[in-house]
Amino acid sequence: MAVHIGVLGSGVSDPGRDAVAETIGSAIGRAGALLVCGGLGGVMAAACRGAVRSGGVTLGLLPGDDRSEANEWVSIAVPTGLGEARNVLVVRAADVVVAIGGEYGTLSEVAFALKSGRPVVGVETWALRRPDGTEETGIVRSTVHEAVEIALALATQDPHA
Amino acid sequence: MAVHIGVLGSGVSDPGRDAVAETIGSAIGRAGALLVCGGLGGVMAAACRGAVRSGGVTLGLLPGDDRSEANEWVSIAVPTGLGEARNVLVVRAADVVVAIGGEYGTLSEVAFALKSGRPVVGVETWALRRPDGTEETGIVRSTVHEAVEIALALATQDPHA
Amino acid sequence: MAVHIGVLGSGVSDPGRDAVAETIGSAIGRAGALLVCGGLGGVMAAACRGAVRSGGVTLGLLPGDDRSEANEWVSIAVPTGLGEARNVLVVRAADVVVAIGGEYGTLSEVAFALKSGRPVVGVETWALRRPDGTEETGIVRSTVHEAVEIALALATQDPHA
Amino acid sequence: MAVHIGVLGSGVSDPGRDAVAETIGSAIGRAGALLVCGGLGGVMAAACRGAVRSGGVTLGLLPGDDRSEANEWVSIAVPTGLGEARNVLVVRAADVVVAIGGEYGTLSEVAFALKSGRPVVGVETWALRRPDGTEETGIVRSTVHEAVEIALALATQDPHA
Repeated sequence: MAVHIGVLGSGVSDPGRDAVAETIGSAIGRAGALLVCGGLGGVMAAACRGAVRSGGVTLGLLPGDDRSEANEWVSIAVPTGLGEARNVLVVRAADVVVAIGGEYGTLSEVAFALKSGRPVVGVETWALRRPDGTEETGIVRSTVHEAVEIALALATQDPHA
Repeated sequence: MAVHIGVLGSGVSDPGRDAVAETIGSAIGRAGALLVCGGLGGVMAAACRGAVRSGGVTLGLLPGDDRSEANEWVSIAVPTGLGEARNVLVVRAADVVVAIGGEYGTLSEVAFALKSGRPVVGVETWALRRPDGTEETGIVRSTVHEAVEIALALATQDPHA
Repeated sequence: MAVHIGVLGSGVSDPGRDAVAETIGSAIGRAGALLVCGGLGGVMAAACRGAVRSGGVTLGLLPGDDRSEANEWVSIAVPTGLGEARNVLVVRAADVVVAIGGEYGTLSEVAFALKSGRPVVGVETWALRRPDGTEETGIVRSTVHEAVEIALALATQDPHA
Repeated sequence: MAVHIGVLGSGVSDPGRDAVAETIGSAIGRAGALLVCGGLGGVMAAACRGAVRSGGVTLGLLPGDDRSEANEWVSIAVPTGLGEARNVLVVRAADVVVAIGGEYGTLSEVAFALKSGRPVVGVETWALRRPDGTEETGIVRSTVHEAVEIALALATQDPHA
């Protein structure tokens, strides 16, 4: 079965961030991996567009209960009706996640990925410092161009893959 | 986008019931509809097998948090980690549902489908009588061979389709 | 710890049904049990009112994400944000359930209670017939005046209590 | 209705951290606020103990589906059966949250609180830096002795309160 790569990022469009997401989505599609995301706009839509245009398949786990909320590049849409709690399901459905940008929803997904032992690749995302002053090292920093390659390598060596 | 048909039924294998499920799954696959189910064994596995063998695609929404719990004919598995509450998500993801047999989990899904206004086709399933003695007419009874045809017709005329 | 009794019923007011619910709520409060419900109007509000007026405590598990949706007799409100999936949580929180009336949401909760092995007391509620024509016997029929006494007896002998 | 204060922290016991949690729980109980948490051990148990011993009431939203998993100082236990997704419910149930320590589950709850606009008071917890290098200012840093006073002030001026 294909590796499932979660793409985490804001639903609000931002040209620079969306371009990053589309590049990452394209790489996921070319690699034959499945892209999992929250199914809405912004980073999610750009990543799905990239994946589908490069021949990939995308799974969108929506917060609402109406399938039509999905962006047009979602291949399979699941309207969870759970609100923000669907972020947990996005992480559960992925073998590895790529976090893009610095919004709160993304942070929640990074936290759930770290909690559940899934590898996290971060592209221009949060930096986290523990109370004792040490930096969290569970987020593997990457450029946009290497992110999917790193994610695939981490997923393959990880027990969740 | 393809019609999403939910197949509701027990995870425990029963030769007669599983044969019914496989026939229905085959018809879903041939029709080019997407089969949505709970992703486990019994009716779910038989329906997925029928769908995949006739060229279809299947979506399995699992109760646990491990994708490997899915039966081998699930094309896309979503480990919800919600336990029995995932039954609600199976119904939400479907435009119409086909209920097979008489187990409690199936009953809960029929109830959610009726509650949310999705059409329900029943094949050898529960009969429900209201407190005033009237029979519930929201379950459209069908033979195994007509079930998918009826489901597609109902989905097409229904606002949820 | 007090027995947790779930009260299942419609959110739409109906004078006769609400009077039944208030009587049952009063008996729960007098018995020193905790009343668990979905926290909204109709049967839920009437049952909570009865419980609180007889000295009891009520827990309302709301479908939305705003605590203020709770009826005014909910002692502790939990805004789950899960929509109808919160019905599963109402059942999980209860040792035994009392189902009142014949709406679809109530049916879903009865189904989850049967599925999870919790005793179900039914007052003017659904009757269920299996595909083989036999009547479901898991719903213990009761008059309004005996319902809570029966529920307490079932909860005490049940492993979930 | 009383202010609902969420206490977020690890389920693993640590003497220093648990002492902080117990002090904060005591202050919540003395203030007449309701303490909401995940209902398990470590920070959650210590905070509940402090609250109950100072006359307060505690609500525990458990990840599993068995009420007996709750620590002994939980007044009302709700077994959600949602796994880690219950973290979202803890935040939804609170007007304001106090985060203690630096574990991943705590981080996910802080993220959901920030996302949903609930004030966050942090005691020896995570520091978060955005991709542009700026520090996240949504976490109001506090000593253990001032945390509840600050939380109450923030809840009172906040639209969620």
